[in-house]
Amino acid sequence: MTNRAAEYIESHRKEFLVELFELLRIPSVSSDPAARPHMERCAAVLRDRLADAGLRAEILPTGGQPVVWGERKIGAGPTVLVYGHYDVQPPDPLEKWNHGPFDPVITDGNVVARGASDDKGQAFALVCGIEAALKSGGGPAVNIKVLLEGEEEVGSPSLAPFIRKERERLRADCVVIADTSQFDRDVPAITYGLKGLVYMELVVQGPSKDLHSGSYGGAVMNPANALTRMIAACQGPFGRVAIPGFYDRVRPLEDWERREFAALPFREDGFLAEVGSPSLWGEEGYTTLERKWARPTFDVNGLVSGHTGPGSKTVLPSKAGAKFSMRIVPDQEPQEIARLAEEYLRRIAPPGVSIEFITHHHAAPVIVRRDIPAMRAAEAAVERGFGRKPVFIREGGSIPVVGTFKQELGADTILLGLGLPDDNAHSPNEKFCVQDFYRGMDTMAAFLEELGDRTL
Amino acid sequence: MTNRAAEYIESHRKEFLVELFELLRIPSVSSDPAARPHMERCAAVLRDRLADAGLRAEILPTGGQPVVWGERKIGAGPTVLVYGHYDVQPPDPLEKWNHGPFDPVITDGNVVARGASDDKGQAFALVCGIEAALKSGGGPAVNIKVLLEGEEEVGSPSLAPFIRKERERLRADCVVIADTSQFDRDVPAITYGLKGLVYMELVVQGPSKDLHSGSYGGAVMNPANALTRMIAACQGPFGRVAIPGFYDRVRPLEDWERREFAALPFREDGFLAEVGSPSLWGEEGYTTLERKWARPTFDVNGLVSGHTGPGSKTVLPSKAGAKFSMRIVPDQEPQEIARLAEEYLRRIAPPGVSIEFITHHHAAPVIVRRDIPAMRAAEAAVERGFGRKPVFIREGGSIPVVGTFKQELGADTILLGLGLPDDNAHSPNEKFCVQDFYRGMDTMAAFLEELGDRTL
Repeated sequence: MTNRAAEYIESHRKEFLVELFELLRIPSVSSDPAARPHMERCAAVLRDRLADAGLRAEILPTGGQPVVWGERKIGAGPTVLVYGHYDVQPPDPLEKWNHGPFDPVITDGNVVARGASDDKGQAFALVCGIEAALKSGGGPAVNIKVLLEGEEEVGSPSLAPFIRKERERLRADCVVIADTSQFDRDVPAITYGLKGLVYMELVVQGPSKDLHSGSYGGAVMNPANALTRMIAACQGPFGRVAIPGFYDRVRPLEDWERREFAALPFREDGFLAEVGSPSLWGEEGYTTLERKWARPTFDVNGLVSGHTGPGSKTVLPSKAGAKFSMRIVPDQEPQEIARLAEEYLRRIAPPGVSIEFITHHHAAPVIVRRDIPAMRAAEAAVERGFGRKPVFIREGGSIPVVGTFKQELGADTILLGLGLPDDNAHSPNEKFCVQDFYRGMDTMAAFLEELGDRTL
Repeated sequence: MTNRAAEYIESHRKEFLVELFELLRIPSVSSDPAARPHMERCAAVLRDRLADAGLRAEILPTGGQPVVWGERKIGAGPTVLVYGHYDVQPPDPLEKWNHGPFDPVITDGNVVARGASDDKGQAFALVCGIEAALKSGGGPAVNIKVLLEGEEEVGSPSLAPFIRKERERLRADCVVIADTSQFDRDVPAITYGLKGLVYMELVVQGPSKDLHSGSYGGAVMNPANALTRMIAACQGPFGRVAIPGFYDRVRPLEDWERREFAALPFREDGFLAEVGSPSLWGEEGYTTLERKWARPTFDVNGLVSGHTGPGSKTVLPSKAGAKFSMRIVPDQEPQEIARLAEEYLRRIAPPGVSIEFITHHHAAPVIVRRDIPAMRAAEAAVERGFGRKPVFIREGGSIPVVGTFKQELGADTILLGLGLPDDNAHSPNEKFCVQDFYRGMDTMAAFLEELGDRTL
């Protein structure tokens, strides 16, 4: 980047950190209906930050949580759309946090708070990078648009309709998102592939009320028994998913991908220590990185039935529920996978129970080509911001909006990973490295310059 | 019974009902540590009632909840020990009660409250019957002992040690318990067989913390996935339990039992309406009554893992738990069944998780011969109290103390069912028919007289 942008960031470090803390103090939990006032306050603060950065900023209503919008038009030149989200996951289990989840602290060089990495910290680093690029000189030859949504953690129900409705406002040549991770500490990465997501809930209803398991057991189907059988039947041998047709559209890993993944500085023992499981496990015939990034999965996210408190209760529960999600890969299609799962589960449901499904959300899997101009600009920008070349990786998480941007705007997305794999996203004690917060600003400022240079 | 005992009951109906309401207002939930003061108050009230009934009454400490004890010695003559329990199941789910569970009301001829049938109402009917027998004349030629415990709903951990320690005090020729059901309205029953119980909890631990299901799914074993597979693997085809060795000691139903069960006025459509399931289900080759009473079962009583609230959370949970119980039949042995289940589950546990077990409680299955004097006296007493002969049935519930009385005192137990199958024991809106409350008193008074006549 220009020395001036770097100097601007250097001289504003403290202010940027104070502003991040202000954002992290707002409990913008989108899945909690009671948090609506916090969502609105968070959006208002971000609007002010975008205005400070030199953008024309406003809050745009949607059917759900508001969108924060910022724009800088120069006319000619490429247009980059920066996307992030200001909503966060619920903080539970609260008792496992060392500090209040919305009471940010700096510990061992990290900001610790819900949303520190996912995604307030990363998204705000991009905003600060834009501010540095715009305020430290004439500014890059790039049109800039910023869209910060408030529903990412609940599946972005309002975003796709918003993007379709505001297609002209949003039109861009490429999209930049910082909501992924570096490969490891000091191994910056650009993510070119994402898994998709099909998140469902199965509710099994047996008797119309809870029954005494002694007086009635054996004579009626227990819905919790039925649920375990149905969920178990989705899991095949060798770590495979047993839903018929599930693998039909799975694109095999390319040889070059398997080679590059294998060359990454990945240590299974370090990964095992990080997750704390007794041993690693996964689909036979694939490495851990391949399983994480490029093979589809079936995971139970929640189970509840009957007596869940301490001690015993001899109850035959009237119903049982499982939340489960399938992470899918190119070229699996969310609607089709949801249909296959539902058809299969309905077919194998035992007698004596009725079942229903709740569909929570869908996201399409994504792969971006590595030879497009925006990707080249990003590669150069990361090298300038982090002081080393990025590796190219995939990611098991889902960012549904990436597929929507491709479909609605025709724009490919550059996923700049500023976080680290052990940031505890969605877990207690979520964190974000302060140094990476600043490197992210440098990278963003450099990206705008590189993109302007490359395409003018 | 003598006219005088019947007249005594007739003339004290209102007082007896008021006293039952007083008992039902006490939330004596033995599984709730915070309810300890309620337990003590309930025991004190019952001690006063036993004293009112003409017994020498006292409260005896145990390692856990206190025992209420009452005794009337006449020297010669047989000794009957009456057992009941004053503790109740937790009332949850509270929102499904039409009234407060500890705020008894009379609706449609029933007392509605937690414990109305199981077991305060039934046990107190026996106490009132004793009072009538003792206060309406010279009294029957029978020694009477009464033992009311406060831990039945949590597996009676203190009772077996108490019985062993107090063996001389408790010595009796037979035991009477009213904690079962009539076969149906106006079809009084004596229960000669009970299932046993092995209640366990399986905890599956995977990663040391909750993980993002996108970033980690597929690379570590999900403990909720593992749990569903393990619990499903306990369930075989044809409604059988799949734990190896489970059926080895199961005593087949006798031909006469199958004939008598088949002759009972049981309607599957009525039963189905009562439970409210879409259809009946159970082990192939057996009728619904045989499944309920005489075939062993495997039932999940509780499931919990990950996100259990509304909406979605993309979590790969760090642990998952299942509470489950096996109802066993003669001659299965609780310790052996628990060992078989644990060995099997340990053997099939998938890699990548650790498992542990919590054993909640055990009870042995029971069968009592129908030709002993106490059983003959009970048959005659039920006919006098209810105005019709009882049917002889078995029951799927477990009353662990019945096995202990047999083992420690050599005494067989007569199970006088005063409740009804649809009393909602362990469910919201538990009830007890007021008329049966009084019939139970009549039956108890008659039993004392019949037993004295038969064995003097």
